[in-house]
Amino acid sequence: MSVKILNLLPVTGDVFTPEMFKYMRKYLEPDTEVQTYQITSGPPSIECEYDEALAAPDVLRLAKQGEEDGFHAIFINCFGDPAVKAAREYVDIPVFGGFEPATHIALGLADSISIVTVLPNVVPNVEGNVSKARLNGRIVSIRNVNIPVEELQDHEKLCKALAEQSLLAIREDGAQAIVMGCTGIVDVAERIKHDLLAEGYDVPVLEAAQSALKLCEVYAKMGLRQSRLTYMTPPERK
Amino acid sequence: MSVKILNLLPVTGDVFTPEMFKYMRKYLEPDTEVQTYQITSGPPSIECEYDEALAAPDVLRLAKQGEEDGFHAIFINCFGDPAVKAAREYVDIPVFGGFEPATHIALGLADSISIVTVLPNVVPNVEGNVSKARLNGRIVSIRNVNIPVEELQDHEKLCKALAEQSLLAIREDGAQAIVMGCTGIVDVAERIKHDLLAEGYDVPVLEAAQSALKLCEVYAKMGLRQSRLTYMTPPERK
Amino acid sequence: MSVKILNLLPVTGDVFTPEMFKYMRKYLEPDTEVQTYQITSGPPSIECEYDEALAAPDVLRLAKQGEEDGFHAIFINCFGDPAVKAAREYVDIPVFGGFEPATHIALGLADSISIVTVLPNVVPNVEGNVSKARLNGRIVSIRNVNIPVEELQDHEKLCKALAEQSLLAIREDGAQAIVMGCTGIVDVAERIKHDLLAEGYDVPVLEAAQSALKLCEVYAKMGLRQSRLTYMTPPERK
Amino acid sequence: MSVKILNLLPVTGDVFTPEMFKYMRKYLEPDTEVQTYQITSGPPSIECEYDEALAAPDVLRLAKQGEEDGFHAIFINCFGDPAVKAAREYVDIPVFGGFEPATHIALGLADSISIVTVLPNVVPNVEGNVSKARLNGRIVSIRNVNIPVEELQDHEKLCKALAEQSLLAIREDGAQAIVMGCTGIVDVAERIKHDLLAEGYDVPVLEAAQSALKLCEVYAKMGLRQSRLTYMTPPERK
Amino acid sequence: MSVKILNLLPVTGDVFTPEMFKYMRKYLEPDTEVQTYQITSGPPSIECEYDEALAAPDVLRLAKQGEEDGFHAIFINCFGDPAVKAAREYVDIPVFGGFEPATHIALGLADSISIVTVLPNVVPNVEGNVSKARLNGRIVSIRNVNIPVEELQDHEKLCKALAEQSLLAIREDGAQAIVMGCTGIVDVAERIKHDLLAEGYDVPVLEAAQSALKLCEVYAKMGLRQSRLTYMTPPERK
Amino acid sequence: MSVKILNLLPVTGDVFTPEMFKYMRKYLEPDTEVQTYQITSGPPSIECEYDEALAAPDVLRLAKQGEEDGFHAIFINCFGDPAVKAAREYVDIPVFGGFEPATHIALGLADSISIVTVLPNVVPNVEGNVSKARLNGRIVSIRNVNIPVEELQDHEKLCKALAEQSLLAIREDGAQAIVMGCTGIVDVAERIKHDLLAEGYDVPVLEAAQSALKLCEVYAKMGLRQSRLTYMTPPERK
Repeated sequence: MSVKILNLLPVTGDVFTPEMFKYMRKYLEPDTEVQTYQITSGPPSIECEYDEALAAPDVLRLAKQGEEDGFHAIFINCFGDPAVKAAREYVDIPVFGGFEPATHIALGLADSISIVTVLPNVVPNVEGNVSKARLNGRIVSIRNVNIPVEELQDHEKLCKALAEQSLLAIREDGAQAIVMGCTGIVDVAERIKHDLLAEGYDVPVLEAAQSALKLCEVYAKMGLRQSRLTYMTPPERK
Repeated sequence: MSVKILNLLPVTGDVFTPEMFKYMRKYLEPDTEVQTYQITSGPPSIECEYDEALAAPDVLRLAKQGEEDGFHAIFINCFGDPAVKAAREYVDIPVFGGFEPATHIALGLADSISIVTVLPNVVPNVEGNVSKARLNGRIVSIRNVNIPVEELQDHEKLCKALAEQSLLAIREDGAQAIVMGCTGIVDVAERIKHDLLAEGYDVPVLEAAQSALKLCEVYAKMGLRQSRLTYMTPPERK
Repeated sequence: MSVKILNLLPVTGDVFTPEMFKYMRKYLEPDTEVQTYQITSGPPSIECEYDEALAAPDVLRLAKQGEEDGFHAIFINCFGDPAVKAAREYVDIPVFGGFEPATHIALGLADSISIVTVLPNVVPNVEGNVSKARLNGRIVSIRNVNIPVEELQDHEKLCKALAEQSLLAIREDGAQAIVMGCTGIVDVAERIKHDLLAEGYDVPVLEAAQSALKLCEVYAKMGLRQSRLTYMTPPERK
Repeated sequence: MSVKILNLLPVTGDVFTPEMFKYMRKYLEPDTEVQTYQITSGPPSIECEYDEALAAPDVLRLAKQGEEDGFHAIFINCFGDPAVKAAREYVDIPVFGGFEPATHIALGLADSISIVTVLPNVVPNVEGNVSKARLNGRIVSIRNVNIPVEELQDHEKLCKALAEQSLLAIREDGAQAIVMGCTGIVDVAERIKHDLLAEGYDVPVLEAAQSALKLCEVYAKMGLRQSRLTYMTPPERK
Repeated sequence: MSVKILNLLPVTGDVFTPEMFKYMRKYLEPDTEVQTYQITSGPPSIECEYDEALAAPDVLRLAKQGEEDGFHAIFINCFGDPAVKAAREYVDIPVFGGFEPATHIALGLADSISIVTVLPNVVPNVEGNVSKARLNGRIVSIRNVNIPVEELQDHEKLCKALAEQSLLAIREDGAQAIVMGCTGIVDVAERIKHDLLAEGYDVPVLEAAQSALKLCEVYAKMGLRQSRLTYMTPPERK
Repeated sequence: MSVKILNLLPVTGDVFTPEMFKYMRKYLEPDTEVQTYQITSGPPSIECEYDEALAAPDVLRLAKQGEEDGFHAIFINCFGDPAVKAAREYVDIPVFGGFEPATHIALGLADSISIVTVLPNVVPNVEGNVSKARLNGRIVSIRNVNIPVEELQDHEKLCKALAEQSLLAIREDGAQAIVMGCTGIVDVAERIKHDLLAEGYDVPVLEAAQSALKLCEVYAKMGLRQSRLTYMTPPERK
């Protein structure tokens, strides 16, 4: 069985390049197909819960569309997990945002995990997701580089800042593995891993989008689907 | 200062009667004003996270409207707390759903609290809110009466079922106070309290909507407003 | 119904001025009556569990007296909550110390709360109360300014020290709201809030005594009373 | 060094017989001396937090007296730990109530522990102590036999009821060791252990007073004393 | 890159049939190679921590052998995770037992998970692993069917018993997904899922060995390896 | 009854001197007998989980030997608790490693405990034991002095480093009692206590081996033995 994954962009802005998409599918099986749908109504980017709320209805519309179009799994491409739980209720195929896959993979590699993200704004939202997932005992800190969005394309600057915060996460928070807390951060893991190794720390560094697409593939291959006791099907109404 | 509270209905359905509104304001100061706005786009009722997601954008629109119209606090009238966190980001006045106020009040009355709600569907959502609030050590169970919506107007039947589940919450889960887990359950507390007393249990029973309106009044009077470190103001965009 | 609250001072020392009492009732309804009873046997001030133990019997005597004198709620005016649980057993009206009300109000404003108090001595006691209340997931630190009691009347010095520790609570402990951890600290919230805002942090600052009196009023108005499953009535003995 | 332990009775009632005292010291070294002081002002028995509060001042007076009289450790003979923390502040020798010693010993024997006590009234108090000690992950339930005090001298009846609740603790709560939750329950462990074994459960059963006296001996022999960072010495006042 | 996984049997007994191995690799990529090594010194089966301890040295020898033989990941085929942490220190490729993979996959499908295993003996060990992993908030119970080993080949009887315990896990423990707690339980998931559906519960059922082999493949493909801050390389000695 | 304790060395190296053994039994009753057995197959020292796994089978052989030789309790002389749980299954007398006794004793002296050990390598292992014991709420940090083994005989240097880390544990982690996290650290407690006192901190300092031998004596005297519900007897096999 070859797997079809829907890469669902929950923002109206122009944030992903073809190079990024190509990079994200690095570890997928060759015959796994990834297609992108993007919402047409919602915020240009997701920087807070307000943005998530505005994005949600169109995310749900596209999720249903994706299920009808034959996709086997859906990746809602944002670390804040916008509408992920609602979508799991609404469709009958696995749905993941950016938070769970990278975090769950990290659980198999280290006892203590730190998440390093871009903006301070999203930290309370991620903290809420950690608490909701009851993973406070394993995720020991959530750090951010606080780089304005317009300077994010400076890949060198971003890598340096991420490595610096990762180093602090190890030294001050006891982190033993690092998860990038934004699905738009790609192609940085090798570099950060290298920088940390230079300081004497040999730790896994996980990118969220890559991890999510890979786990979407796995859940689809294994024929797994969300529990209907956790995620009820919404009531039918006329 | 006299307080103006917005009672924001996050459903399009016709679920609240004038008698219910009157009852809900039972403990407010006489000069406290309560007005109701109802969303025009969204689900008829909220029974799952999907419904919450669909309701959210119009809830946010009305919350902003309410702030502009001079309200001092907003009660989003649903125990599932739809869009509560997003609204706290978006407006500069206190915002509460049904979950926090009754629960926080119960914290001052008993060590162990049970929530009794109507439908099993909403239980995972409420459990998620309990975990997010890190109150798992105090809220010991979430029970439901599992009565179909169409039979809810049978007040006698509802009261009996709520009292029965409250009794089980005390006997099997160790509950020492009961919180009604639906803002549409009104005018039942005295009756349930009476029934439990007849079984030998003298415990507080709290209704969510009454508690929420009262705490909205308190936060407004005290000039309190959400922390901008937990709830950032959404970024301005053109 | 107009509410009568007993302000019960659990110390024999001369620590409260008429100005302080006036300030504390700032947010009460105009027709709410507050009267003060002070213990005549016990420690001059409460700085440790030993002091609390010595104060308790006379606090209980006055609590019962207050109930007989027709008060609707009792505020035991100390953040250490001396004899609060025993008093809840002994009388049939709501009883609060300083710890719960301000903390419970803060729960509705921020995810992470810090308590800032005067002396290091009381910190273990407050930590014990936080653990007993199972609020360790929300109350992230307890700080103190360590100012000798005799220098406390220097209001400027106190405000500066409280603002400084509040700032550290935000920066180092992740606090998003601040609770003053001593009921004798009054008339500082606005100043601290202002100082924190000047550093870029817009967070709620709560004073304990004000919060407690206000919640006493609320519980009384709502006719709420402690659970007899948490707080049994003491056995009658001849 | 031979150890002198003060057995401090925090009740004015006539609850302990010479046979009970003899039994309690069963595992002490032959040269360990145990003397009993009893409070003269306070409740006849301790059945709630109110009783504890009334007993505390005289307990503290006798604790100081005991220290001056050369005792090396103090056992405040009640499972509710009345005035234990205050006494640790007030004297410079180890102080234990009934809760910690039996529980700490059980930690070395089993993962999951249940406490079985006499009256339902004391359960919330014990639960508070479990939470304060942050041992909720190990102490899985607190059960009681609910036998009126006047029927407690029926040793056969008491043993049967304790064994029955211990059995339920194993079968329904997952208990793997049992702690008797009242220092007045003595000479029952062997019998309960035997009854549980007859049902196929080979588990430790611990009596509180015996455990406490033994650990008092140990702490005294090892020259250990409470941390002054947890238990400050009360401030000197004239 | 095609992946080579070592299926390391930590028992000397003859417990796995070729049909079982074939079944376990059901969801692997066609070009993924799985080879089995079996310890030659150790217990015939693993039923307690003692068995695990005896198996560990030979497991470690074969793990190192496997790494030298070019495997990309190791599955230590037992739900008790014998020597998993030691092996992660000793080799430079991912190592999993049966506990983590199925559990981590279930985290993405449901809030509350139950583990259903064969013998009561292993329950404390699994509970220990749950606590060590800090997953107590998500794994709500560990149940067993208590079937003697000699009757385990009766597949029909086993399936029935597993379905029955799974049903109790849902009804009494609040489970929303089921994990089979023994890597030797294979080819039962569909049947149990079907039986639960017949009772109205649509929940995921995960088999441990299948899940483990699939995640071994994923970690190998993604080039992931354990953190050296959690799992230090053992010191070199001559 | 006079007690016989087996001091079981789980390493093949020559790490303990007669002076150390003599020191360790400082607080035992004069008639308590301590004998040492040392494994002959296993690692020279224990610095990681891999070392523990290699030591375990011979530790278990000697534990059984010890039981047959009439010992009343076994101290497996390592803070990492190698094979402790397996040995509790295998023999019918109490078994302790270094972690639990000192920690349990400290629970009676302070709310917050730090463990200070020698090498960073063992920290994750100790953290795992803390989590397994569900004591995360009480044990607030695990620090190490990071002194190479070959420099450990420099007692002055070791004491200074331990005192320094203990001071940091107090100041930065909130520790109120210190436990030495290696059974080979002896004769340092008085010195560290003295140094901390000089900085104004009067806190207990516990050595692991002394604490363990003393508690072995206590459990033996009290006739206590591990729960067979936590530690099943391994199945008999021919």
